[in-house]
Amino acid sequence: MAGALRAGIKRVASDKLDLAVVISEVPCTAAGVFTTNRVQAAPVVVSQAHLRRGPHLGVVLNSGNANACTGEQGLADARATAEHAARCFGGTPRHYLLCSTGRIGVPMPMPKVFSGLDNLQGQLTRSGGLAAATAIMTSDTVPKECAVQISLPGGKVRLGGMAKGAGMINPNMATMLCILTTDAVVSPKQAKRLLATAVEKTFNRITVDGDMSTNDTVLLLANGLSEMAIDGDEAEALLAAGLETVCADLAGKIVRDGEGTTKVVEVLLEGARTAREARKATEAVANSVLLKCAWAGCDPNWGRIVDALGYSGAVFDPMRVDISYDRVPLVRRGVAVAGDAEARARKVAAQPSFTIRIDLGAGSAGYRVWSSDLTEEYVRLNLSE
Amino acid sequence: MAGALRAGIKRVASDKLDLAVVISEVPCTAAGVFTTNRVQAAPVVVSQAHLRRGPHLGVVLNSGNANACTGEQGLADARATAEHAARCFGGTPRHYLLCSTGRIGVPMPMPKVFSGLDNLQGQLTRSGGLAAATAIMTSDTVPKECAVQISLPGGKVRLGGMAKGAGMINPNMATMLCILTTDAVVSPKQAKRLLATAVEKTFNRITVDGDMSTNDTVLLLANGLSEMAIDGDEAEALLAAGLETVCADLAGKIVRDGEGTTKVVEVLLEGARTAREARKATEAVANSVLLKCAWAGCDPNWGRIVDALGYSGAVFDPMRVDISYDRVPLVRRGVAVAGDAEARARKVAAQPSFTIRIDLGAGSAGYRVWSSDLTEEYVRLNLSE
Repeated sequence: MAGALRAGIKRVASDKLDLAVVISEVPCTAAGVFTTNRVQAAPVVVSQAHLRRGPHLGVVLNSGNANACTGEQGLADARATAEHAARCFGGTPRHYLLCSTGRIGVPMPMPKVFSGLDNLQGQLTRSGGLAAATAIMTSDTVPKECAVQISLPGGKVRLGGMAKGAGMINPNMATMLCILTTDAVVSPKQAKRLLATAVEKTFNRITVDGDMSTNDTVLLLANGLSEMAIDGDEAEALLAAGLETVCADLAGKIVRDGEGTTKVVEVLLEGARTAREARKATEAVANSVLLKCAWAGCDPNWGRIVDALGYSGAVFDPMRVDISYDRVPLVRRGVAVAGDAEARARKVAAQPSFTIRIDLGAGSAGYRVWSSDLTEEYVRLNLSE
Repeated sequence: MAGALRAGIKRVASDKLDLAVVISEVPCTAAGVFTTNRVQAAPVVVSQAHLRRGPHLGVVLNSGNANACTGEQGLADARATAEHAARCFGGTPRHYLLCSTGRIGVPMPMPKVFSGLDNLQGQLTRSGGLAAATAIMTSDTVPKECAVQISLPGGKVRLGGMAKGAGMINPNMATMLCILTTDAVVSPKQAKRLLATAVEKTFNRITVDGDMSTNDTVLLLANGLSEMAIDGDEAEALLAAGLETVCADLAGKIVRDGEGTTKVVEVLLEGARTAREARKATEAVANSVLLKCAWAGCDPNWGRIVDALGYSGAVFDPMRVDISYDRVPLVRRGVAVAGDAEARARKVAAQPSFTIRIDLGAGSAGYRVWSSDLTEEYVRLNLSE
C-alpha cells in the first residue's frame, strides 16, 4: 500500500508531491543496496542500520531535501522520521527504511515531515504507487514504474518497482532511489543476493553525468503474501530474471529521462584483456563529456571514442580496435572504414537510441553501460540548484 | 626563428593560418613530454623516436588535422614531413620534431604540407613567433605566448613559449601543444629533468573537460646561444623557476581560453592521507560536470563538492571537512557555516577567477588543479567537430 502528499519540503511554491509512504500489509523481508560514496546521507546511514535486523514494514520517502551533509542533526532527524512513522503506521522505528533526495546541506523541515506523516495516516491505498513514484521526482519529467508477474513452478508471484533519477547518475549507483516490492516468500539472504545481482547488471551500468550521489538507494521488500516460496535454483533463477527485467526497465527509464537528455546510448564493449579493463574502457567512453556533446549533435565522432579508450587505462593495440554504430562499421583495425560509413553512422547517431559496439581486440572480457547525450539543456538545468 | 602560413590543411574556407615552423639558428638540445594516452598520434610517435638522439633543429606544427588514428599511412606522412623540412631548412629528418592538432582519423593532405613548407623557405624571422602561435590555434580564441628573462649568476638567459589548448584538456596533459625555447646552455639530461618538473606542476594540473588527447606535446628547445651554462644547483633552480613561471602562465591562458569557459577555478586541497588520495580528491572536484555547471551559474554549491570528494576514492571523515571560496568559509567540520556565508560565497563564485580551498582533515598531503566552468557554449562548440 502506498500514498503521497505535498508536505511542503520542496521550496518551490507549487503543488508538487514531496512525501510518500510505502507499507507492506504484513511484516516483510527487506534488502538494500546503497551508494558507495564515502559521504552518505543520514537516511542511508539509518536505513543500513535498520536493515541489520528484520522484519520490516515500509519505507518513508521524500524529495526536496536529501538530508545529506547535515551532521548529527540530520541523523537525529532521520531517526525521528522512523519513530514518527511507527506511531502513524504501526510497528517500531526499526521496521522503517528511509529514502531522501533533493538539496544537500539543508536541515530537514521536521514539523512538515511529522504533519505530512500524520496526514497520510489512513490514506494509504493499493493504488497509491503512482502518487508515491511522483512524490520522489526531482528533475525527473515522468514518474517511473514497472510491474511484472513471474510464473514459478508452483504458481505466480508479482514484482513491481518505482524509481527516480534525472541527474548525478553514474555507475555504482545513480542519484537514484528505487523501491521494489514482491509478494514472493524470500529469505533475507535470498533478497540480498537477488538484489545485489540485479543492481550490478542494471542500475550500476547507467550514467548521465558521471557524478555519484550521497543518497542512492535500492530497496527490495518481499512480504510473502503469495505464499510462493522461492525454493531451489529454478525458482530463484526465474525470480532473478524477473527482478533484472524490472530493474533494467527502470534503469532505462532513468537514462531516457536524464537531465536534458535527448538520446540513450548503449556502449557495448568486448575484447578487453580483463573484466576490470573492460569496465574502465566502457566507462571512459560512456562518461566522456566531449563524446556526449557529439552525440547531442548526432556526430558519431569515432576519434573521440578512440581517444577515450586510450586514456581509460585499458591495455590494447590501437591498430586492432573495431568500432560500429548499430550495424554500421566505422573503424576497422584502428583505421576509418572508407566509403559512406560516416554518413550512415551519422544517421544512426541521429536516432533516439543506438548501440556503439567496440572490440578492443586484446582479449575476451566485455562490459556494457547505458549513457546519454549532454545537451545545453543539461547545463541550463544545473547552473544552480 | 619562426614563420607560419595558410597551407589549406583546415577544411573551413577561411584565411586561418594552419602550418608553422620554429627553427633554431644553431643545432639545439631538445626534450619533450607527451600524452600518456595509449593511442598516440603519428607526430607524437615520430617526435619521441627523433628525441632519442640529438641535436635538433626545429619543429613543424600544424592545426586542422591531428594525424591521429591514421595507421601506417599516418606514420609515413609524419616521417615525410620531417624529410621535407630537412630539405627546406637544412639538417636531416631526425633534426625535426612534429606537432599536429585538429581532426582525428583523417589522412594528412600531404601535398598541401609539402608546398606549405616550400613556401615557408626563407620566410622565417625572429619575430615570427606570434604567427606560429596563431597557426596552431584550433578553437582557441587568442594566441598564447609568454617570455621571460632569467638572471643567472653569470648573466641573463631568455626563455619563451607558445601554446594552444581550448578543448580535451585534462590533467596528464591537456589537448595542448607547447613549444618552449631558451638560449641557455642546457644538457639533454637537464632539459628532460627541467621540463618534466615544470609540466608536472603546471600543464598536468589543468582541466577543462576531463578528456585527454592523443596529441599532447610539450617541447623544450635550448640552443645555447647565450653561452650561459646552467652549472650548479643555484643556476638550475633559477632556470627551473623561470620555466615554471612560463609554463604556469601558458597553462593559465589555456584554462582561461577553454571552450566556452567564463571563469577559472583553482581547486586547492590539503589534509589528504596520501599524495595519491590528494590528487584523486582534487581531480574529482575539478572534473565534476555538475560542479562545473554550478560555477557557470555562480552557485558555490558545496554539496556537490562534498559529493565529489565522497566518490573520489580518498579516505576521510565527512565530519572533518572544511571548504571555503576564496576567504569565505562555507563548510566547517562537514556542516554548512551559518549566517550570510552562502550569499558571500555566491559573490566569490561570480568572479572571473577564484580559489576553492578544501581541507579533508585526514592527513597532510595536498594537491592543486586549475579548472573552469562548463557552459552551454561548450556544448554548442562540441556538438560536432
